[in-house]
Amino acid sequence: MTVSIDDVRAAAQRIEGRVRRTPVIEVAPGLTFKLELLQHTGSFKARGAFNRLVAAKDRGEMTGQGIVAASGGNHALAAAYAARELGVPARIFVPETTPAAKLGKLRTLGAEIVLAGSEYAEAYQAAETARDESGALLVHAYDQPEIVAGQGTVGLELLDQAGAFDTVLVAVGGGGLIAGIATAIGRNAQVIGVEPVLASAMHRALEAGAPTDGPVGGVAADSLGARRLGELAFTAAREHGVRSVLVEDDAIVAARKELWRGHHLAAEHGGATAYAALTSGVYRPAADERVVVVVCGANTDPSTLS
Amino acid sequence: MTVSIDDVRAAAQRIEGRVRRTPVIEVAPGLTFKLELLQHTGSFKARGAFNRLVAAKDRGEMTGQGIVAASGGNHALAAAYAARELGVPARIFVPETTPAAKLGKLRTLGAEIVLAGSEYAEAYQAAETARDESGALLVHAYDQPEIVAGQGTVGLELLDQAGAFDTVLVAVGGGGLIAGIATAIGRNAQVIGVEPVLASAMHRALEAGAPTDGPVGGVAADSLGARRLGELAFTAAREHGVRSVLVEDDAIVAARKELWRGHHLAAEHGGATAYAALTSGVYRPAADERVVVVVCGANTDPSTLS
Repeated sequence: MTVSIDDVRAAAQRIEGRVRRTPVIEVAPGLTFKLELLQHTGSFKARGAFNRLVAAKDRGEMTGQGIVAASGGNHALAAAYAARELGVPARIFVPETTPAAKLGKLRTLGAEIVLAGSEYAEAYQAAETARDESGALLVHAYDQPEIVAGQGTVGLELLDQAGAFDTVLVAVGGGGLIAGIATAIGRNAQVIGVEPVLASAMHRALEAGAPTDGPVGGVAADSLGARRLGELAFTAAREHGVRSVLVEDDAIVAARKELWRGHHLAAEHGGATAYAALTSGVYRPAADERVVVVVCGANTDPSTLS
Repeated sequence: MTVSIDDVRAAAQRIEGRVRRTPVIEVAPGLTFKLELLQHTGSFKARGAFNRLVAAKDRGEMTGQGIVAASGGNHALAAAYAARELGVPARIFVPETTPAAKLGKLRTLGAEIVLAGSEYAEAYQAAETARDESGALLVHAYDQPEIVAGQGTVGLELLDQAGAFDTVLVAVGGGGLIAGIATAIGRNAQVIGVEPVLASAMHRALEAGAPTDGPVGGVAADSLGARRLGELAFTAAREHGVRSVLVEDDAIVAARKELWRGHHLAAEHGGATAYAALTSGVYRPAADERVVVVVCGANTDPSTLS
């Protein structure tokens, strides 16, 4: 199963007007940020969620049962938001460890919340069971073609907005965003996945030749902490020659602070991870290399920025 | 003394590459934000400061004494930043009430800080004296033609970026920004100045037929608290038919919170004041009216957002 550039183009048409065309800003000569943290619900996840929901609705697969999803984070917010906008019910299965503040946001979006187990895998299993029993549409956090195609619209916009560029740096959790961007960008630029050392599912998969389970931790685990890379992401990464670099947690913390102090952007740790590859020197562009950094998430407590 | 569209165009050429071309984002149908809070040093003030400094340098008026300015806020940061970038010394006269955090930022930018009096007027007088004694270039916070022309480049960018629009909402303190934007935009759209009820220099000037001194207070006083509208702003406001609306402090507080919660933008109170005209209903656009809001400042303590 793969996702094609045509799938991404179809997604762009499908979600037009429902998601924000987020701006780019050239912050220094040759360095451009894609401000995807300004997306609805504060992350790129709204793109994939809308693409999946609208496509299912168009095919007549959306029942009165609406959708189910598993996540205590950005995907949950995006799925709940998209469901509300489309007027269908959303049941979100969240790990019991999810902070109360996030549950409050989800309730504000009108989602029904079901506490299920102590970590994501258990919540996901509960969502699958609910799908099987109710006929609701399961919206995966990263490993469904319509999710990947939706996230890929970030890449299409970049090709249109950013002029010519050589390299795009993208944070990787389960790999939905980078799979979509790599598919959209193809040979137009080099795509580099950036992961925390403590949550490096793509790096491990590329080394092992297949996605494998592994540990998850560190400051960005709430958004990038996937135990295993998605199959679609693995296929796309190999097909498009995606490279992988790793950054330490302290580099992520420093990059997030620099995004605030130097650029007035309040990003979450996962949203600052791609930039950390530059600020830490883990990725060093050539003198004339034009680099784009996708700043992909804003769901953070701003009091931790000052 | 007036500022012309040619002055604004000349400013745009002069400061190109030194300031950021800040992006716009359509946040809802017919509603666009100009993200000027992402400018260098976190506000539009960098534009006017660079225009003044570069123009003076080009005319051979910049001595080894560099610049003097009076401000404890955004103008101070912008003037110090521009001076550092141009390699000239900056002496900034600040009221003794300036918070230590702001002094720290100014020192980081390499400026010499002189505490002078308990409010802006005294600091400004000290800056004038220093200019007279040393021959340094005085950089005014709003009432010099090169400052107004520099701020006006926001308006030129809007005409280029935002497609057709009917109305632009701009926060007003001493009036440098709105004077520049009104000059740049001319008859292309209606320009509306938004001021806090507690710091309403433009509103008062338009009612009285001339700038007059008045009280200053409220949540946005640190950035919009000018006792008297600039002469250039008064002239520009009359020439271009600028309208004026007032917003209460609680509307500013609510708009700032909504910018964070709904749009992931960390704005200061002054930066949220223009948006407050919409969220409070003080300004109600027509059904098909296309509105631009200039979100103009980010120098805020993010811990007060959560």
